[in-house]
Amino acid sequence: MTSPLIKGNAVIAQSGGPTAVINQSIVGVVEGLRGPDEIGKIFGSRHGVRGLIEDNLVDLSAIDQTTLDRVANTPSAALGSTRDKPDADYCARILEACQKHDIRYFFYTGGNDSSDTCRIVNELSNEASYELRCFHVPKTIDNDLVENDHTPGFPSAARYTGLMFMGDQLDNRAIPGIKINVVMGRHAGFLTAASALMRDRSNEDGPHLIYIPETAFDLDAFVTDVERIYTSLGRCQIAISEGVQDASGESIGARLIKGEADAHGNAQLSGSGALGDQLATLLKEKLTPKGGKAPRVRADTLGYPQRCYPDASPVDQAEARISGRRAAEAARSGDIDGSIAIQRASDNPYQPKFVRVPLEAVAAKTRYLPEEHKQGDNDVSDAFVEWLKPLVGPLPEIGRL
Amino acid sequence: MTSPLIKGNAVIAQSGGPTAVINQSIVGVVEGLRGPDEIGKIFGSRHGVRGLIEDNLVDLSAIDQTTLDRVANTPSAALGSTRDKPDADYCARILEACQKHDIRYFFYTGGNDSSDTCRIVNELSNEASYELRCFHVPKTIDNDLVENDHTPGFPSAARYTGLMFMGDQLDNRAIPGIKINVVMGRHAGFLTAASALMRDRSNEDGPHLIYIPETAFDLDAFVTDVERIYTSLGRCQIAISEGVQDASGESIGARLIKGEADAHGNAQLSGSGALGDQLATLLKEKLTPKGGKAPRVRADTLGYPQRCYPDASPVDQAEARISGRRAAEAARSGDIDGSIAIQRASDNPYQPKFVRVPLEAVAAKTRYLPEEHKQGDNDVSDAFVEWLKPLVGPLPEIGRL
Repeated sequence: MTSPLIKGNAVIAQSGGPTAVINQSIVGVVEGLRGPDEIGKIFGSRHGVRGLIEDNLVDLSAIDQTTLDRVANTPSAALGSTRDKPDADYCARILEACQKHDIRYFFYTGGNDSSDTCRIVNELSNEASYELRCFHVPKTIDNDLVENDHTPGFPSAARYTGLMFMGDQLDNRAIPGIKINVVMGRHAGFLTAASALMRDRSNEDGPHLIYIPETAFDLDAFVTDVERIYTSLGRCQIAISEGVQDASGESIGARLIKGEADAHGNAQLSGSGALGDQLATLLKEKLTPKGGKAPRVRADTLGYPQRCYPDASPVDQAEARISGRRAAEAARSGDIDGSIAIQRASDNPYQPKFVRVPLEAVAAKTRYLPEEHKQGDNDVSDAFVEWLKPLVGPLPEIGRL
Repeated sequence: MTSPLIKGNAVIAQSGGPTAVINQSIVGVVEGLRGPDEIGKIFGSRHGVRGLIEDNLVDLSAIDQTTLDRVANTPSAALGSTRDKPDADYCARILEACQKHDIRYFFYTGGNDSSDTCRIVNELSNEASYELRCFHVPKTIDNDLVENDHTPGFPSAARYTGLMFMGDQLDNRAIPGIKINVVMGRHAGFLTAASALMRDRSNEDGPHLIYIPETAFDLDAFVTDVERIYTSLGRCQIAISEGVQDASGESIGARLIKGEADAHGNAQLSGSGALGDQLATLLKEKLTPKGGKAPRVRADTLGYPQRCYPDASPVDQAEARISGRRAAEAARSGDIDGSIAIQRASDNPYQPKFVRVPLEAVAAKTRYLPEEHKQGDNDVSDAFVEWLKPLVGPLPEIGRL
């Protein structure tokens, strides 16, 4: 039986693509660790767990509340992040670093890869009989963690995406044409679905077509879908996930780019406008009547603002902060480990609950858009938008003439 | 001598790319026309002046204040817009439509093309001895109208661009690499320069390199510039205008794409990620050491959110509204015409003044970034940021660890 509180140091690290609220989570951890009984030092590890193995730690113990609050409200990862995906060997070096620095509390904010790192480090520490309390604090704009209703970072990204589509569909009404917007999310369609946040179907608002990675994407059906909307409304706004794939599981972006000359260099999809541009070219070719004028087709790839535009959802900010605090409080309460999941305590009024779940329950698993949130092959349901709305903060009202 | 107030109807139209505040301007015109003495009906022309020649008008006379306020706060052009650039013949049809509908007040919000349309219609009405009071209400995110300190629409686009770069440069610090962001503005560099809004040079914040269309762009110098920053900081954030051109005046985007296979279809730059993607490919090729690993290079093209993201600058909103009102008040005051320019009455505290200038003074002319706002071949001066800051509304504070 271990003591509820163990003296020793703590370390916090951030992983994967930054978000608008991941700093809230690390500040929450710091606040949660600052109890009446001091545990020891609180280290920040620079650039994820790489800071541990490269001995690049920063002491966060004495940082004043004003600075903490300012950091919490700043997007991106203030400690730096990493794309490293540690294997067992890498994790062993993480554990060594913890032992070297007398670290007894290990907090990692990130997605399913980070929860897996947490799980491995935790197992290694158990095997070594070194008491290390390992906690995962979820963070991903993709919202693809199982056990969670939603994950910190997603509501702010959904807010950005929904507002971007609102402005963009009004733009598309003002100067009609076909507009393709490519949204982040390789495997799960939550963020692409968020394009519908501000849509008023009774006004024939866009997005008119929504393509998520969970539904097989067919290029011919796509052209037919767009043609139908464009013929009927004289405009068409499309939301498409960067991760759409065909029935065989091949990425559409990779397939379209493969047909291209070598000048593209490679089939990199993220941080590139290639998928949108290729689809725009395809639509122009297919929808131009013989001897006629090509329709006006434009493509935007939403890019990094989805995860870093400084207009976070206040709900997301508060929840990310609490997630960090709960992880720290749980770690102080005994020799336990886990991931802090956000679940929905009630729908109306919206009320979250924060639940500790086992690392193994979350680690390296992927959650997909539930069936009741899909509608046909190219839309999301109103139930999805109802589910999303309480998470994204105050929204503007659309005025029309 | 004409009477100060002439009985007759009014028409308002919106032109060119929408902005976050162009609706403020049309609402300002409506409010300004609603004086103690009624002039007649207030028409909105759908899709710019095309609504006049296609008889697609909507009566705005009776719209309540709540709706007006809601429309004013909604981005994009609520009456619809057009890319038509009317010639003398088209303008003659506009005048005919005005005569047919007993329109005596003509308001056109837009950039330098719209002011030119205003000028031509005004001349035609003078030749026809038909009293038509023609007013141009400036609107352009490019900020390229002469006689103006800045134009409605620009401050909100600058706000978006500055905040996007802030989040993005923090992202670039968290996961270091080379990041290219392509900004709107074919001829003038104001919006690209706004990328520096939140930059703290003492923290080595991005953007580290800023390329505007006013300065000849050299591909070799670009590669050398990026290499220098990347070698020194391990990261590099770049702002580049979609309109950059080489010393001979050839568009860099068009030149890079020309080298590509036909699959791109054409050299369309706007609403496409091609320029950013081509520059990223170039950097990867040039900066990869023999047998070494290519640097992480990503490109985002900021796209339509620059002009339509619903997070307008409150200063911009207020000024756009006043510009519309002043145009209407001037039109009611006598048989005059003109464009309502925003000039700077004082710098500290910032105070604008609204000045009626002749249509000929603005029409079809282009304003460029002034010399004192440039710094070398690839940066903007601190004086530019000081000039910009009062226009963009409240800004967040960056927290750092």
